Amino acid sequence: VQINSQRMKKRMDAINSIAVTADGGMMRLTLSDADKTARDLLKNWMEQEEMEVQVDDMGTMYGYMAGSDQNALPICAGSHMDTQPNGGRYDGLFGVMAALEAVCTLKDNGIVTKSPLVVINWTSEEGTRFSPSMLASGVVAGIYETEWSYNRKDIDGISVLDELKRIGYFGKKENRLQRAKYYVEAHIEQGGVLEAEDYELGIVNACLGITGLRINIVGEADHAGPTPMTMRKDSLMAAAEIMLKVRELVLNYGDPAVATIGTISVLPGAQNIIPGETSFTIDIRHDIPEGLTSLEEEIRVVIERTCKEYDLKKKIERYWRADPVYFNKEVIDAVEQAAEKVGVSSRTITSGAGHDAVYISRIIPTGMIFVPSINGKSHCPQEDTKWEDIVKGTEVLVETLLELDNN
Amino acid sequence: VQINSQRMKKRMDAINSIAVTADGGMMRLTLSDADKTARDLLKNWMEQEEMEVQVDDMGTMYGYMAGSDQNALPICAGSHMDTQPNGGRYDGLFGVMAALEAVCTLKDNGIVTKSPLVVINWTSEEGTRFSPSMLASGVVAGIYETEWSYNRKDIDGISVLDELKRIGYFGKKENRLQRAKYYVEAHIEQGGVLEAEDYELGIVNACLGITGLRINIVGEADHAGPTPMTMRKDSLMAAAEIMLKVRELVLNYGDPAVATIGTISVLPGAQNIIPGETSFTIDIRHDIPEGLTSLEEEIRVVIERTCKEYDLKKKIERYWRADPVYFNKEVIDAVEQAAEKVGVSSRTITSGAGHDAVYISRIIPTGMIFVPSINGKSHCPQEDTKWEDIVKGTEVLVETLLELDNN
Repeated sequence: VQINSQRMKKRMDAINSIAVTADGGMMRLTLSDADKTARDLLKNWMEQEEMEVQVDDMGTMYGYMAGSDQNALPICAGSHMDTQPNGGRYDGLFGVMAALEAVCTLKDNGIVTKSPLVVINWTSEEGTRFSPSMLASGVVAGIYETEWSYNRKDIDGISVLDELKRIGYFGKKENRLQRAKYYVEAHIEQGGVLEAEDYELGIVNACLGITGLRINIVGEADHAGPTPMTMRKDSLMAAAEIMLKVRELVLNYGDPAVATIGTISVLPGAQNIIPGETSFTIDIRHDIPEGLTSLEEEIRVVIERTCKEYDLKKKIERYWRADPVYFNKEVIDAVEQAAEKVGVSSRTITSGAGHDAVYISRIIPTGMIFVPSINGKSHCPQEDTKWEDIVKGTEVLVETLLELDNN
Repeated sequence: VQINSQRMKKRMDAINSIAVTADGGMMRLTLSDADKTARDLLKNWMEQEEMEVQVDDMGTMYGYMAGSDQNALPICAGSHMDTQPNGGRYDGLFGVMAALEAVCTLKDNGIVTKSPLVVINWTSEEGTRFSPSMLASGVVAGIYETEWSYNRKDIDGISVLDELKRIGYFGKKENRLQRAKYYVEAHIEQGGVLEAEDYELGIVNACLGITGLRINIVGEADHAGPTPMTMRKDSLMAAAEIMLKVRELVLNYGDPAVATIGTISVLPGAQNIIPGETSFTIDIRHDIPEGLTSLEEEIRVVIERTCKEYDLKKKIERYWRADPVYFNKEVIDAVEQAAEKVGVSSRTITSGAGHDAVYISRIIPTGMIFVPSINGKSHCPQEDTKWEDIVKGTEVLVETLLELDNN
């Protein structure tokens, strides 16, 4: 089944012209005026296609296309339309528009599924305006409490609830997604693996688990000049050694294990004083819970040993732990068969980033489809995907929905 | 000749009780009320000892004790009385009080030198309230222009000239030190070498030259999760490798060569984003100009090669270069003979930190005497020196002045 590529492109371009930065980036912050404009467009298109639009109390939008079987549970597809500040054209939006286009394509071809099909736009995935990320899907999955989520505030002290009401997207709690047969999310890869290996599609089998460590190393802040190299207790040198050892360790674990030191600071932070204190974070990801645990353990040993060697004190605090998530075998198989049918080259891939699908997988059989990201870029104006990959990815979604409908 | 240890201690304690922080640190910021109180005390003591007190247009204080030879050039000794915020009890103050005690001791013993003896308190050595450091000695040595120096401002926009006038220490330009036979500065080591090797005194032969580099490495700020270790352009990993290689390089050069990475920052600085950009400084010190140059060159090669290996862009900017300074042979010899006479264990040592003596050495034959710092600490409340080392160091200064007077 071929999609209407022109229609899809026109709709995506419409949304991507709402709030464009000087760099050509997207600025649809969660529940902002730009987000409202995007939501209104989506709502109009869904209504044009004779879908029933519902909004829940977290502002999440659901467009229902009726199925032939009154008793069948719905099959859902979607993602989010909010962006990072100065974000990209495809992150989130692709998954929503692919779902919409899939429903329209089936309708155009006179294909009625047994299950109702639901196009979903989750509220507040990015977590930049309101923290944490994946807020609405987290509420639906029972991870975040409703009241607490309403009261998440942006930098100006404005709450989620205030903004839901202001832009007219504070819907009903009973509209929340509760029971469904499947949930499928199409998304850009946000990494460079598919492109590097020349695949057109990724069949996502899992999402990496994450452990976040905050490390503080305390040495002695002595004068840069009068303190011989051999008499120093340089916390930054120990940190440098730890960083390189962590990288070596993770390289030995092999893909998809990764570790990232994304923040670092030193005290007192003067050009002519040896850093008495160095603080940094390590973001550790692995696709198997035991692997994540043992990687964390080995990293702790590296820190321990290095600090002992340097005769330094250290504190290690775990600020985050999320187990790996495995997507549903039936959805994975359906995506695989759909990819074969459409004739795209594909490989199994593990998502390194979090997605609404990760939370939804707790309550509904879930899977994901990745399309390649050019140069692996996302969350920036350079974020890009070849249009033909967008089209093929959407066609795979159409076939996946049909496969799942037959299960 | 024995000094009056009690008198000296009483005077130092008096000054060290003017402005004490909660931590027990000293807070005599340059030209503050606390600095004025300290200056007034010094002035009173000098006048009590029948010294002639002069103040120059940078606020530097000179206490003249007449000599027997009308034609002899003066021999000077001193240091500074300003401190770092929350600084120590001995940095600077020791050199001024040792000079005063030396003059008093000679007077008590009826010893009149041929040369007049001058006790000096240099204005604004620390460079914390007003930048740069060693301001008044820099003006006297012709390094800084007078008007520019008057207009140095603190964080509140108050200038050196304003404060000199406010506290009543804006003296006459003709009082500036111009010609002198010698200048000797006693100071704490500010490092741990003398203590570690169990010496009571350091005969300072030179002051390390400094090259300061500011380095900026640009890679790519990708997602921590979806970017495999082998596909990263992680600027911080390259920086870590450079840091360890620089340390190895400097260790091979041997003492007193040192290199310090005292500041580091990464962009964007998020826990889950690979640092696209890392900036840091390297403070490089060496006792020989050619050594300093070749060390800088080798460090640049390390940076160059590492960035090439990682396929990253880099910028290297030199923010500072000061050649090593060699102190005067006659002063060094005089200190050595004085140390022998007093019977203290001593070694030749190179100063890693800057001192007023470094600038003054450009215009007057100059030398320095170091006393040990406990745990190598300075610029902090923990800064400390055994009182017996203070006494011995002062007695060495007395004998040094006598040696120099006989030259």
